[in-house]
Amino acid sequence: MMTSAPKAVLIYSGGMDSFTLLHQLRAQGYQVFPVSFHYGQRHAKELQVAAQVCQQLQLQHQIIDLRAIQPLINQSALTGDQDVPLADYAPDNLAITFVPNRNMILLSLAIGYAVNLGIEACYYGAHSGDHALYPDCRPEFVERMDELAQLANLQPVSLRAPFLHLNKTEILQQGLALGLDYSQSWTCYQGQTLACGQCSACRERLDAFARCGHTDPLKYQTA
Amino acid sequence: MMTSAPKAVLIYSGGMDSFTLLHQLRAQGYQVFPVSFHYGQRHAKELQVAAQVCQQLQLQHQIIDLRAIQPLINQSALTGDQDVPLADYAPDNLAITFVPNRNMILLSLAIGYAVNLGIEACYYGAHSGDHALYPDCRPEFVERMDELAQLANLQPVSLRAPFLHLNKTEILQQGLALGLDYSQSWTCYQGQTLACGQCSACRERLDAFARCGHTDPLKYQTA
Repeated sequence: MMTSAPKAVLIYSGGMDSFTLLHQLRAQGYQVFPVSFHYGQRHAKELQVAAQVCQQLQLQHQIIDLRAIQPLINQSALTGDQDVPLADYAPDNLAITFVPNRNMILLSLAIGYAVNLGIEACYYGAHSGDHALYPDCRPEFVERMDELAQLANLQPVSLRAPFLHLNKTEILQQGLALGLDYSQSWTCYQGQTLACGQCSACRERLDAFARCGHTDPLKYQTA
Repeated sequence: MMTSAPKAVLIYSGGMDSFTLLHQLRAQGYQVFPVSFHYGQRHAKELQVAAQVCQQLQLQHQIIDLRAIQPLINQSALTGDQDVPLADYAPDNLAITFVPNRNMILLSLAIGYAVNLGIEACYYGAHSGDHALYPDCRPEFVERMDELAQLANLQPVSLRAPFLHLNKTEILQQGLALGLDYSQSWTCYQGQTLACGQCSACRERLDAFARCGHTDPLKYQTA
């Protein structure tokens, strides 16, 4: 008897974490429906990378242009006019990279998509390194959002964040064990041809590769 | 000493309930920041009515065009190709007027707007008549969404649905007691010059006026 593959909606940014999660879900036998959001990040490079990966894997990929919501959430370096700090993540420079209510907004759309497709699971790649910095990556947030997703529609949806208690290095270790090619992921906050190697996102990525004893296959301006 | 007015974000559809809530909040001394969403309802009439009211009251009104999210939520009569049923609301014809995860999506955007403005309260006009039909109007949903809004951002937001235990007639009674002119609200699901008087939304509105012993000041095709 044939059984159909389980299905999952995945918020797929094009970054390392959701790239790893995409491949893990596929390795577990899921048919994955990735959705990417353009919410006014100052470049579309990570979305291009995400689209290339989905095309190569022949996945039905939704790229949703949310720039029309900018008048509501425009107090942020990622979506506004301020410069992105070229430094490590820290509470001081975190505040200006914070998009108001970002994860609740993106998750509610992904959950709506799951309801629309009759899919019962919605995944995203929040991880423990985000907890201290972003309130909407904390376990309490994910638990409450999951409870809400169970009762907000005629059909319950389960919200799953399997990296919630892993750090960036541990996620990378899992992906390297799967043999993933991380040149197919994008992390840098700058939108240039090559990753800058200087912004907080690049520094965190390079640090994770160093801790895993691997060289990042991505090309950097500073290499 | 001068004290500044308390502020509130309000999801303002242009319909009777949010029209009543807008005026109640103003009567309570709130500076109101109304936000309306165009999410692919098949006409923009209610948004025009909402914009006129805000212009008249000199309120800063955000109208956010969410039509780009349609590929995620397109299984619905309100946003898709099916006809709206010309009958009373009932579970049978409800399913096709249901937009997947609508309230979670709209509330998460309104909460983001509140965070962005530094406002601690976000209002919407869910009422008891919706409970049986729409899962995302039930008290459990509102309570959980409020808990989530308290912890999803660096700044807590309180979600308030003061009509949650009132029916349409009771809301109308409150608005009539305030002397509101309901010709400035729009309810009909059809997008024509005059309200149809036939769709489930018109029928419910006319029923509420009849129960209050008032004549609806809105013009109807069937009058």
